[in-house]
Amino acid sequence: MKEPTLYQFERSSLLIVISGPAGVGKDAVLQCLQERGCPFHFVVTATDRPPRPGEVHGVDYFFLTTDEFAEMVEQDELLEHAIVYGQYKGIPKQQVREALASGKDVIMRIDVQGAATIRRLAPEAVLIFLTASSEEELEQRLRARGGDSSAQLQKRIVTAREEMMRLPEFDYVVVNRDGELDQAVDDVLAIIQTEHCRVEPRVVRL
Amino acid sequence: MKEPTLYQFERSSLLIVISGPAGVGKDAVLQCLQERGCPFHFVVTATDRPPRPGEVHGVDYFFLTTDEFAEMVEQDELLEHAIVYGQYKGIPKQQVREALASGKDVIMRIDVQGAATIRRLAPEAVLIFLTASSEEELEQRLRARGGDSSAQLQKRIVTAREEMMRLPEFDYVVVNRDGELDQAVDDVLAIIQTEHCRVEPRVVRL
Repeated sequence: MKEPTLYQFERSSLLIVISGPAGVGKDAVLQCLQERGCPFHFVVTATDRPPRPGEVHGVDYFFLTTDEFAEMVEQDELLEHAIVYGQYKGIPKQQVREALASGKDVIMRIDVQGAATIRRLAPEAVLIFLTASSEEELEQRLRARGGDSSAQLQKRIVTAREEMMRLPEFDYVVVNRDGELDQAVDDVLAIIQTEHCRVEPRVVRL
Repeated sequence: MKEPTLYQFERSSLLIVISGPAGVGKDAVLQCLQERGCPFHFVVTATDRPPRPGEVHGVDYFFLTTDEFAEMVEQDELLEHAIVYGQYKGIPKQQVREALASGKDVIMRIDVQGAATIRRLAPEAVLIFLTASSEEELEQRLRARGGDSSAQLQKRIVTAREEMMRLPEFDYVVVNRDGELDQAVDDVLAIIQTEHCRVEPRVVRL
């Protein structure tokens, strides 16, 4: 008698978190994945700040009123949220739920502190720590971005150092070397492909 | 003060085991990896049978005398061994040790039973289970190989069914669909790339 279940390799949608200190290139990696047309759901952040000219609701951000935002916090409907410069920012759970249910892999960028929150809420998320190859490289990039005072720059570097210590909380580390963004993106894609080959898939429940 | 260790992402050599029932395409995957020039150490099996015309020592097999083989068994110097049709076959540990020490990833094919032995001896090995996409596909491939009587074929299918039940002992499952060998090889390469990104690398000690 046949065992019809033997060959049922079900595909589970993944929740992929790209994190790492400021300046390591999280946005650049995400943008590159989008430009390559990867069939992921790229998470859109919700905010209560008003849209700037040209910003599109549901694309750049979900623009909510402060009351709507407070309600979502109240209902525990945010995967993660923070108040940045006096304005709410957060990730609606429902968005992630729907994307996962549709069969898509969901990918998001978040700071190191936020990644720890995701790990608690969704232990089966795939946590990728993006890093420069050295502190000197990171420092050069932060300088090149400009806009920071010397004191601010120093603070970012100290923060990055503290964040590097949290590497053990992550599943994978991807080194984004200067001029080798494509290699970092390839690593991220290989990780996603591999996670779909796991004998025990990571099923995220939110 | 700087923490010089923060950015030391050491590369560990991997021991990769490709296993799965007869007929799933283990040899084809290995051959494809070799043809693509992948910089792995492809494990060479030792045997006490005499070389056939054209076979090269150290390439096709390590050809040993029966006494040499018995001595290696005695000294526990084989990663795995079996007697097949009255002749010894086995994998010298020293070969794997040296290749790993040289910094290369080591890749080997082995039957499902043998993979379980590797897991015991080297828990940090990466175990990949190669499979057809259905029992019908596997059966067709075994028929196409020819040479088996109807009873032999039936036995192979029953064995494959038992081996499929051991899937949970493996890390990854790669489906080698008819006409999609390249996809299966890509999956194997993605798995190897990903394992090198693990925050906690798998360090094999033999």
